[in-house]
Amino acid sequence: MFYKPSEPHGLKHGPLKAIIAPRPIGWISSLDDAGGLNLAPFSFFNAMAENPPIVAMGINGTHSEGGAKDTLHNIEKTKEFVCNMVTYDIRDSMNATSAMAPRAVDEFELAGLTPTPSVLVKPPRVKECAAHLECVYWQTIELPTNDPNHKNNMLLGQVVGIHISDDVITDGMVDMSKYQPLARLGYMDYCYVENTFALNRPG
Amino acid sequence: MFYKPSEPHGLKHGPLKAIIAPRPIGWISSLDDAGGLNLAPFSFFNAMAENPPIVAMGINGTHSEGGAKDTLHNIEKTKEFVCNMVTYDIRDSMNATSAMAPRAVDEFELAGLTPTPSVLVKPPRVKECAAHLECVYWQTIELPTNDPNHKNNMLLGQVVGIHISDDVITDGMVDMSKYQPLARLGYMDYCYVENTFALNRPG
Repeated sequence: MFYKPSEPHGLKHGPLKAIIAPRPIGWISSLDDAGGLNLAPFSFFNAMAENPPIVAMGINGTHSEGGAKDTLHNIEKTKEFVCNMVTYDIRDSMNATSAMAPRAVDEFELAGLTPTPSVLVKPPRVKECAAHLECVYWQTIELPTNDPNHKNNMLLGQVVGIHISDDVITDGMVDMSKYQPLARLGYMDYCYVENTFALNRPG
Repeated sequence: MFYKPSEPHGLKHGPLKAIIAPRPIGWISSLDDAGGLNLAPFSFFNAMAENPPIVAMGINGTHSEGGAKDTLHNIEKTKEFVCNMVTYDIRDSMNATSAMAPRAVDEFELAGLTPTPSVLVKPPRVKECAAHLECVYWQTIELPTNDPNHKNNMLLGQVVGIHISDDVITDGMVDMSKYQPLARLGYMDYCYVENTFALNRPG
């Protein structure tokens, strides 16, 4: 089948997120300017460069109380955030923080998670995660939108500090059988890395 | 362990790509201004918005013959591209196109792939793929770099047409057990979506 995204697709649900899959999950902790904590997962998320490491995330739509979503609002104000990496064992806690909560809600508390201090930035990390990227804000790119009441933004940050739990390292390498990162698919679906294989780069 | 990416990490290989994983793969077909075909895989790739759909990809480093990589060079010139989605069955063909080839090389030919016409854009699609996103160029964002000879760019495009093979659709939804999308991990490693599970959105 072929369709233009500007026209009806005729399927049960929009298939775009099922096609661009699996997507890594950035579970973003940030602080508002009064020190209030926020934590929310984003799967329009990836690295875009390595030297220096840059991460990008799409933050789409508005807060139920109006204005930008907490994550965008906070990072633009306080210029720092942490990408907590989500693994299979903490999938339910991650999911609990995906609800659209009132601005005042601390999702660490909501999901029973433990904030632990970062080294270089103010927002705390999720202690239960096996890897964390401490980041400083770099830039927001306003993306096109079909609905003036629904803004689409891409936020870019530079990774300044990297935590990896020694529990997921084997022989100096991140061991996928221990790390088991979670990924987002389409609809309500998720997967995690179970089996891996190597392809040697040609010539 | 903790390290700053600006300092040595002491591990066998850089762990960033293993941490931000699994990453979806955009296998990008483009044309140069003389009609020469190019095809290359990128895993610093994801959607960033849905309405309208925007895709982003990090295109880092320079061509072995100097100047920008073919994909960036072509898309900036001719303003169109296709994201061919990579599935498990065509992993070896995808890998064959990841070599740094001379500019004149047509990677479709190199990997024994079949170009098939797109509907809305000039670059052909990879016939062997189960899904394709026809895209128009939107913007390039120059990212920071630690090495002036190694440029980092993020290219953004808008999806204007979507192909999905009827073979991977069950009851109006993309069926992961048929689609089996491939994903990039760290080092030389890959995985594909084998098992999935649903998490119902809270509240």
